[in-house]
Amino acid sequence: MPYVSPVSEISFILEHVAGFASLRDTERFAEATPDLTEAVLTEAGRFCDGVMAPLNRQGDLTPARLENGVVRVSPGFEEAYHAMVEGGWIGVSSSAEFGGMGLPFAMATAINDMMTGACMALQLNPLLTQGQIEALEAHASDAIKDVYLPKLVSGEWSGTMNLTEPQAGSDVGALRTKAEPQDDGTYKITGQKIYITWGDHEMASNISHLVLARLPDAVPGTKGISLFIVPKFIPDENGEPGQRNSLRVVSLEHKLGIHGSPTAVMEYDGATGWLVGEPNGGMAAMFTMMNNARIGTASQGAGIAEAAFQHAAAYARERKQGRAGGTGAIIEHADVRRMLTAMKADTFVARSVVLSAAVAVDMAKATGDADWSARAALLTPIAKGFATDTGIAVANEGIQIHGGMGYVEETGAAQFLRDARITSIYEGTNGIQAMDLVARKMMDGGEAAYRLLDEVEALAEEARGRHPQLAEAVWGAAETLREATEWLVSADLEDRFPGAVPYAKAFARVLGGHFHLKAAMTEDAPGPRTALAQFYVTRLLPEHGALLSQARIGSAGLFDLTVEDLVA
Amino acid sequence: MPYVSPVSEISFILEHVAGFASLRDTERFAEATPDLTEAVLTEAGRFCDGVMAPLNRQGDLTPARLENGVVRVSPGFEEAYHAMVEGGWIGVSSSAEFGGMGLPFAMATAINDMMTGACMALQLNPLLTQGQIEALEAHASDAIKDVYLPKLVSGEWSGTMNLTEPQAGSDVGALRTKAEPQDDGTYKITGQKIYITWGDHEMASNISHLVLARLPDAVPGTKGISLFIVPKFIPDENGEPGQRNSLRVVSLEHKLGIHGSPTAVMEYDGATGWLVGEPNGGMAAMFTMMNNARIGTASQGAGIAEAAFQHAAAYARERKQGRAGGTGAIIEHADVRRMLTAMKADTFVARSVVLSAAVAVDMAKATGDADWSARAALLTPIAKGFATDTGIAVANEGIQIHGGMGYVEETGAAQFLRDARITSIYEGTNGIQAMDLVARKMMDGGEAAYRLLDEVEALAEEARGRHPQLAEAVWGAAETLREATEWLVSADLEDRFPGAVPYAKAFARVLGGHFHLKAAMTEDAPGPRTALAQFYVTRLLPEHGALLSQARIGSAGLFDLTVEDLVA
Repeated sequence: MPYVSPVSEISFILEHVAGFASLRDTERFAEATPDLTEAVLTEAGRFCDGVMAPLNRQGDLTPARLENGVVRVSPGFEEAYHAMVEGGWIGVSSSAEFGGMGLPFAMATAINDMMTGACMALQLNPLLTQGQIEALEAHASDAIKDVYLPKLVSGEWSGTMNLTEPQAGSDVGALRTKAEPQDDGTYKITGQKIYITWGDHEMASNISHLVLARLPDAVPGTKGISLFIVPKFIPDENGEPGQRNSLRVVSLEHKLGIHGSPTAVMEYDGATGWLVGEPNGGMAAMFTMMNNARIGTASQGAGIAEAAFQHAAAYARERKQGRAGGTGAIIEHADVRRMLTAMKADTFVARSVVLSAAVAVDMAKATGDADWSARAALLTPIAKGFATDTGIAVANEGIQIHGGMGYVEETGAAQFLRDARITSIYEGTNGIQAMDLVARKMMDGGEAAYRLLDEVEALAEEARGRHPQLAEAVWGAAETLREATEWLVSADLEDRFPGAVPYAKAFARVLGGHFHLKAAMTEDAPGPRTALAQFYVTRLLPEHGALLSQARIGSAGLFDLTVEDLVA
Repeated sequence: MPYVSPVSEISFILEHVAGFASLRDTERFAEATPDLTEAVLTEAGRFCDGVMAPLNRQGDLTPARLENGVVRVSPGFEEAYHAMVEGGWIGVSSSAEFGGMGLPFAMATAINDMMTGACMALQLNPLLTQGQIEALEAHASDAIKDVYLPKLVSGEWSGTMNLTEPQAGSDVGALRTKAEPQDDGTYKITGQKIYITWGDHEMASNISHLVLARLPDAVPGTKGISLFIVPKFIPDENGEPGQRNSLRVVSLEHKLGIHGSPTAVMEYDGATGWLVGEPNGGMAAMFTMMNNARIGTASQGAGIAEAAFQHAAAYARERKQGRAGGTGAIIEHADVRRMLTAMKADTFVARSVVLSAAVAVDMAKATGDADWSARAALLTPIAKGFATDTGIAVANEGIQIHGGMGYVEETGAAQFLRDARITSIYEGTNGIQAMDLVARKMMDGGEAAYRLLDEVEALAEEARGRHPQLAEAVWGAAETLREATEWLVSADLEDRFPGAVPYAKAFARVLGGHFHLKAAMTEDAPGPRTALAQFYVTRLLPEHGALLSQARIGSAGLFDLTVEDLVA
C-alpha cells in the first residue's frame, strides 16, 4: 500500500488548529493565502508520493556506501534529489532574495513532514541544508551569504552540521576541533567530527560544512566555541566550486535505520574555513541552527507516524482473520481498532504541536512580538519530544498490528521503527529537550506556559456548551498541569530534572486534548473529528495524571539506590 | 561489557518473591533444596556467560542461511548447542524417566531467562524443544514417548511447533494442512507452515515437527484440528534416524532480529506423521504446548530486559559527559538515573511475575490443587504481556541511554531491541494474551483474580507498620484493580475487549507493587530493595489509574469513527 501525503489533514491542522491563519494578518506572510498554501502542499504531496516514496525501501536495502573515499548513494536517490532541486522544495521558507519561496517556516515544516513519510533517509539531506541556510541568514557576513545562500537555497549545493566529536556528545562544550587564523582572514580547521548526516555525496556539486571549533585563545567550555563554514570545494572568484579542501570522510556508520542517509565520520586536516558570526559566538549560531532543526526533527516524528499508521491501517483493512464483524478484516477487532485509533489520535497531536511551534516561529519573525518568541521557545522542546516519541511508538504499534508479518523485513513495517528510532536521539536527546523545557524555558517563572494554559482553558470554557464532557476533561487537565508548573518553577533544578521527561510528556498530552477539542469544534454536528477527540480525551488524556504526579516527586529517593546497588 | 547471568537476583526472586520455597513442601519437588537450586543456577549461569553470550553478536551479523536446501547456522552455534546438550540444559524440568533433571518448571524458566540474556537466537532452539517435550509428555502414546522423549530431553534431537499457515495467523482454526490416514496407522501430512522457529538445521541428528492438521472428515474451525508428530528422518526399528521424510524448508525469513534463529517456511508433501493425542484433539494438545511456551516467551522478555539493562548501565558508568556529580559519568545525571532505575524496577517486576507463574504451574502439578491451576492460568497471559513489553521497552530505553552510539549497530544496544521485538507477537500476540485474560481467565467470575488480590492486600496490611506509604499505595492500587475487575466480570465481552490490554498492563503494574513490597520486607533496615520499591511505587505504580480508567470505558465510542474516517 503506497504512502499518500496527508495534504488535506495538514491543511486542516494548519488552518483550524495551529493558527496559520493569523500569519496572513502579518505583512510578511500576507501572500500565503489559502489558495496558495493548498496549491503548494498539493504539489509537494505529488512530489513526495510520486518521486520519493518509491525509493524508501530501496534506500533501506542498499545503504549509502563509501567506495575509495567517495560516497555512493542508494539507487534512485540522485535522480530524486535533482527533481527536488527542480521543484524548489529545499528553499520553501528561505528568503526570496536568495531564490527561496519566502513562505512561512510552517509550510516548510509541513512539507518536511510529508517528505519524511515518503522517504526519511533522503529527506534528511534538505533538512540539514535548511538548518544551514537559517544559520547563514542570521549570522553570516554578506560576502558569505552571497556566495553560499543562492546555491544552498536552490539545492545546487548541500549543507551539513558538524557539532559532535567522539569525546563530546551532548556536551558540545567539550569539543576540541581547532581553528587557526591565517593572514588572509581564513582559518585552518583541524579535527574529527562524528554523526555528520549526509556528510558527503555527489548529488550536489559542492557541500558546505558548518563546523564548530575553537580559536587558539578560546576559553574552555561553550563560551570558547566559534562557527566556521568549510566547503568541500573552495569557491573560486565566480563562486563556483574550485580547489578541493583538506577534508575527507573517514567512514560511514552502520546504523539501525535510515540506511539511505550516509552518516559520516569527517576529518578536517587544516581545511580552509571562514568564520560565521562573531569569534566565540558559535553557540548562539548553533542555537539558531538547532532551534529550527529541532522542529524539523519533530516533523520527522509526525511524518513517520503518518506513514506507519497508513501502512498498518491498510494491512488491517485487508487482513481477514477470525470472527471479526463487518468485512471480516482485523480492523474490526476491538484491540486492533483501539491501537489504530490511538495511533491516529496521537499522530494528530504530534502534527498539531509541531505545526503550532512552527507557526509561533513565523509569528515571532513576522511581528517581533516577544510573546510569540516565548511561545516558539516553549513549544519547541515539547514538539521535539512528543512528536519523535510518537513516531517511534506508532511505528512500534504498526509492527504489532502486522503480527508475525511485521517482524519480516519485506513487509516494511519494521523499517519505520528502525528509521524513527534516531529521532528521539539526534538534535538533542528527548531527555535534553525536557531539561530545556523545565530549566531555560521556565526562566520566565512559567509565564509562557501559563499564557498557553490560559488559551487552553478559554477554549475549554467556550466548548462547555457543545462538548461538556470533553471540555471539562481538558479544563481539568490544564489545571493539573498549571499546578504542576507552579510547583516546578518554585523548585530548584535538582528537583526539576528527575521529572523533566514526565512533565514534558504530560504537557504534550494536555495540549493534545486542546488540539482535539479545537478540531471537534469545527464540526457542526458530531462527526469524525469529535469521535477522535472523544477517544483521545477519554482514553489517552488521563495519562497526564500519573506523569505529573511523577514530575512532582522531584529528586526524592532518586539517588537512594547507589550506583553500586543499581548495577549489582 | 559482557553479559553476566543474574544468578543471585534470580535466586532472591525465587526464594523471597515468587514462592519457590513452597514447592519444597510438596513430595514432587522436595529435593529442590536451596543448595541444589543455587548450584544448578550457578552452573547454568556459567554456561550462559562463557559459552552463549560470546556468540550473540556473531549470530546477529551472520544469520542462519539456506544453502541448497540445507540450513547453515551462525558461527559457533553448533559447538554451543553441543555444549548445551552436554550440560543437560534442555531437559531441566523434564521427567527423570526420560533423562531429564526432574526439577521444577520454575528452574527451567529461570535458566531460559539467563540463556536469553546471553543469546536469544540460540536459546529459542531448546525453548521449542521444551514445548514439544511438554506436549508429548501430556498427550502422546507410550510408543511415541519412548522413541522421542529421550532424544528430545537430551537434545540429541530438537523439536519445532508448526501452527501458523499463511492464511491463518492468530486464527488457528482456519488452517488447511491435511492429514490422510494410511493403512499402517500413520498419516500423510500435506501443507505449508510458516514462522517455524529453528525449522531446520544440522546441529541435532534429527528434528521432530509437531504439526497441526485436519483429518479428512474434520469439522471446520478449531474443533477439527489434530496434532501429529512428523520427524525429519523417520526413526528406524532402533529408534535411530532412518529414511528422509517428505518435508523441506522452502525459505528462511529476513527478520528484524534474532538473525541467528532460522525461521522457516516448511512444506510437507505427503510426509509421514503419527497422531499425538485424540483425533480432533489438536487444540487441547496445542494449549499444553502453548501454555508453558507462553511462560517461556515471557522469560525471554525478562532475559532481554536484563541484558539491555546491564549493557546500558555499563555504558552510563563509563561515559563521561557534562557537569555530572560524582565520577562525572552520565549515570549521575538525574534523567539517566531515572531511566536506569525504571528499567531495573520493571525488569524485577517482569521476572517476578514470570517466575510466579512458573511456580504456580509447578504447584498445580505437584498438588493437583485447582486453585494453583487457576493461579497459573491467570498469571500466564499477564506475565507474557508484561514481561515481553518490558523487554522491548527496556531495550528501547537502553538505546536512548547510549545516545547516538545506541543507533550504531556496533554498540549492540540496537540488537536487543530488534531481538526483543518479536516477543510481544509470537506465542499469541500480547493483544490476544489480554483478551484471554479478560475472557477465559474471568470465566470464574474473577475468583482467581480476587484470591490473588486478597494476598496482595494481606501483605500490604502486614507491611503497614514498616512501610506505611508503600503499603498504602499498594493496597489502594489493589482496591482499584479489584473494582475494575468487578466491573469487568459484569460486562459482556464486547465491553471487555477494548480495554483488555490496558487492564492486563494495570494488573501487572499492581502486582509489581506487591512484588517490590515483598522484596522490601526482606530488609531489616531500608536498603537497596526498599529504595527500588520506593522508586517503583511512587513513580511507576500510579500508571495503573489511567490504564484502569481506560479499561472501564468499554466499547463506548470505539467504533464511532468508521473505518473510512479512520483511514481518511
